[in-house]
Amino acid sequence: MVRTKNIAVLGGDARYLEMIKNLSRSSDLTIQLVGFNQLNQGFTDVKQVELEDLQVTDLDAVILPIPGINKDGYIETVFSDKNIKLTVDWFKKLPSHCLVFSGIATEYLTNCVKEANLQLVPLMNRNDVAIYNSIPTVEGTIMIAIQNTDFTIHSSKVIVLGLGRVGLSVASKFSGLGAEVIVGARKKEDIARANEMGLKAFHISELTAYTPNCDILINTVPSLVVDDEAIKPMQSHTLIIDLASKPGGVDFDYAKKRGINALHSLGLPGMVAPKTAGEILGIVIEQILREAFQGRKK
Amino acid sequence: MVRTKNIAVLGGDARYLEMIKNLSRSSDLTIQLVGFNQLNQGFTDVKQVELEDLQVTDLDAVILPIPGINKDGYIETVFSDKNIKLTVDWFKKLPSHCLVFSGIATEYLTNCVKEANLQLVPLMNRNDVAIYNSIPTVEGTIMIAIQNTDFTIHSSKVIVLGLGRVGLSVASKFSGLGAEVIVGARKKEDIARANEMGLKAFHISELTAYTPNCDILINTVPSLVVDDEAIKPMQSHTLIIDLASKPGGVDFDYAKKRGINALHSLGLPGMVAPKTAGEILGIVIEQILREAFQGRKK
Repeated sequence: MVRTKNIAVLGGDARYLEMIKNLSRSSDLTIQLVGFNQLNQGFTDVKQVELEDLQVTDLDAVILPIPGINKDGYIETVFSDKNIKLTVDWFKKLPSHCLVFSGIATEYLTNCVKEANLQLVPLMNRNDVAIYNSIPTVEGTIMIAIQNTDFTIHSSKVIVLGLGRVGLSVASKFSGLGAEVIVGARKKEDIARANEMGLKAFHISELTAYTPNCDILINTVPSLVVDDEAIKPMQSHTLIIDLASKPGGVDFDYAKKRGINALHSLGLPGMVAPKTAGEILGIVIEQILREAFQGRKK
Repeated sequence: MVRTKNIAVLGGDARYLEMIKNLSRSSDLTIQLVGFNQLNQGFTDVKQVELEDLQVTDLDAVILPIPGINKDGYIETVFSDKNIKLTVDWFKKLPSHCLVFSGIATEYLTNCVKEANLQLVPLMNRNDVAIYNSIPTVEGTIMIAIQNTDFTIHSSKVIVLGLGRVGLSVASKFSGLGAEVIVGARKKEDIARANEMGLKAFHISELTAYTPNCDILINTVPSLVVDDEAIKPMQSHTLIIDLASKPGGVDFDYAKKRGINALHSLGLPGMVAPKTAGEILGIVIEQILREAFQGRKK
C-alpha cells in the first residue's frame, strides 16, 4: 500500500479554505490544520491540531500563508486568535524531503529553509500560478474599469503596457469585449505576439505619443513607465489601472495633481474570486506533490 | 442654403447630456433645451428656454425623456426644479411633420400624438437602439456577476435564456471571457445560431434538466421561465441575473425562500455607462432625422 503523504497547513486566508477542500479530495493526502480554530466550517478527513501537537518529523509538506513569515517569525492566521511563531529550530525538525510552500519568499523564511536545508516553493513566483491567477486578475480589472468609467469598455481605446503573463490575458480579454487594444511592449517578440493577436503595438519608449488618445491605460510593468511625461497629455476622463506589484509603474502623485484617476489594484484574485484563487493553489500544490512523490518512488 | 432643423429637448436624465452634446455637433440642427435650468455645464450653440417661450410651430422634432409622459401629463426633469406638463393642445400646435421622440410610449403620450396626428418614435422599441444598448447591458451584467460570486466567470457554467437582441450579446461576451455558455431558446433558428457560435443549446422547456449544473443563470425572456421547478434543483452558490423588463422572468419569491441569490437588473446602460448610452441615443436620433429630412427633400 502506498503511504499517504502528511501535509500541515499553517495559517492562511479565505483562499486557503478552497485549497484545503481541493487537497482533501485526494485520498493519498492526510491533512492537518494549525491556526484555523475560529473556522466555523469543517472539512471531511481534515484534522485541526495545535502547533505543539504536530508530529513534525512525519511531515511531507508544510503549507505556509501566501505572505510567508514576517520578520519576527510570525505567520498570518486569519481564522485564529492565536499567534503562531515558527523558528529555525522548528524547521530543522522537519524531514529533509519535506517541501515548504508559501506565496512569496520573505527574508526570514528564506533564512529558515536555508538553515534547515529544505526546499522552498514560493507559489506566486511560478509561471503556472501566475498565468492561472491572471484570469481572476483580468476579471477584477474589467470590474474596476466598468465601475470607474461612464463609458463602455467596448469601443474604447485601451493601452496595455507589458505583454507578460498578466498583460497577455488583459489584452486578449479587453479585445474580446470589443475594446480597441494597443499594446506597449519592449521585446520584439511581444510586439510580434500583439500583432498575431490582431492588436496594434508600439515600443514602450514611445508611450507619450499614444497617451493623448487613450480612454483606459492598464499597466503590468513593475517599473516607472507611466511617468509625468506620459500622464501630462492624457484626456481628463482617462482611467489608469496599475496591476504591477509595489511600488507599481505609475507616477501616482503626478496623476493626482493632474486630476487623472489612477488606481493601484493589487491582490485582485483573492478579492474578486477567492474560491477560484484557492482552487488554483490546490491544483498546483497537488501537482507539485504528485511529481515529488513519483520522483522519490523511482 | 439648407434650412437648419429646430429641435427641442424637453427634460431627461444624465444620458441626455451626452445625447445633446452629440446632436449639437451637427451644424444643421438648432437645439433648444427646456427643463435643464439646474444644469451646471453649458453646451455650445444650444439655448435654454422656458416652455412658454418655445416657438412650437417652428419645431421639426421634439425629444421627450426616456420614460415618456406620465398619466398626469408630466415629464421627468432631472435637471430642473420646475414641473413641466404637456397637453394634447400643446402637441396640436406642432407642425404635422414634427417627429416626437421618447424612450417608451406611455398611454398619455400615445393619446397626445394620436390626437395631434403626429409620428411618435419610441426609441427603446427600435432594434438598432436595443442592439447598441445590449453592449452596456452586457458590461453591467459582467460587473454584477463578478461582484456577486466568489469564483471567476472563466470556466463557470453559464446558462443564457433567450437569444434575442440582448441574449446574443450576453452569450457571446460571456463565452469570450472563457465561460462555458449553454443557451436555452425556443426557436429552432436560435438554437442553430447558438451552435454556430460554438455554444451548446437546449429547448427552454428542458431548463430544469440544466439548472442543477449551473453557476450563473442569465435570463432575457420577459415571461416566467425560471419558475420554482427550475430553481429547486440549483446549487446554493448559483447566481440568477434577470435582465428581462418588469415583471421579469424569474420567480424571485421562490428563489429567496430557497436561498438563491436572484437579482433583477434593469436600466444597466444608464447605470454603468451613461455617456455611451447617451451617445447611442444621439447617433440614432441624428440618423432618423437625417433620413426624415432627406425624405422630405425628394
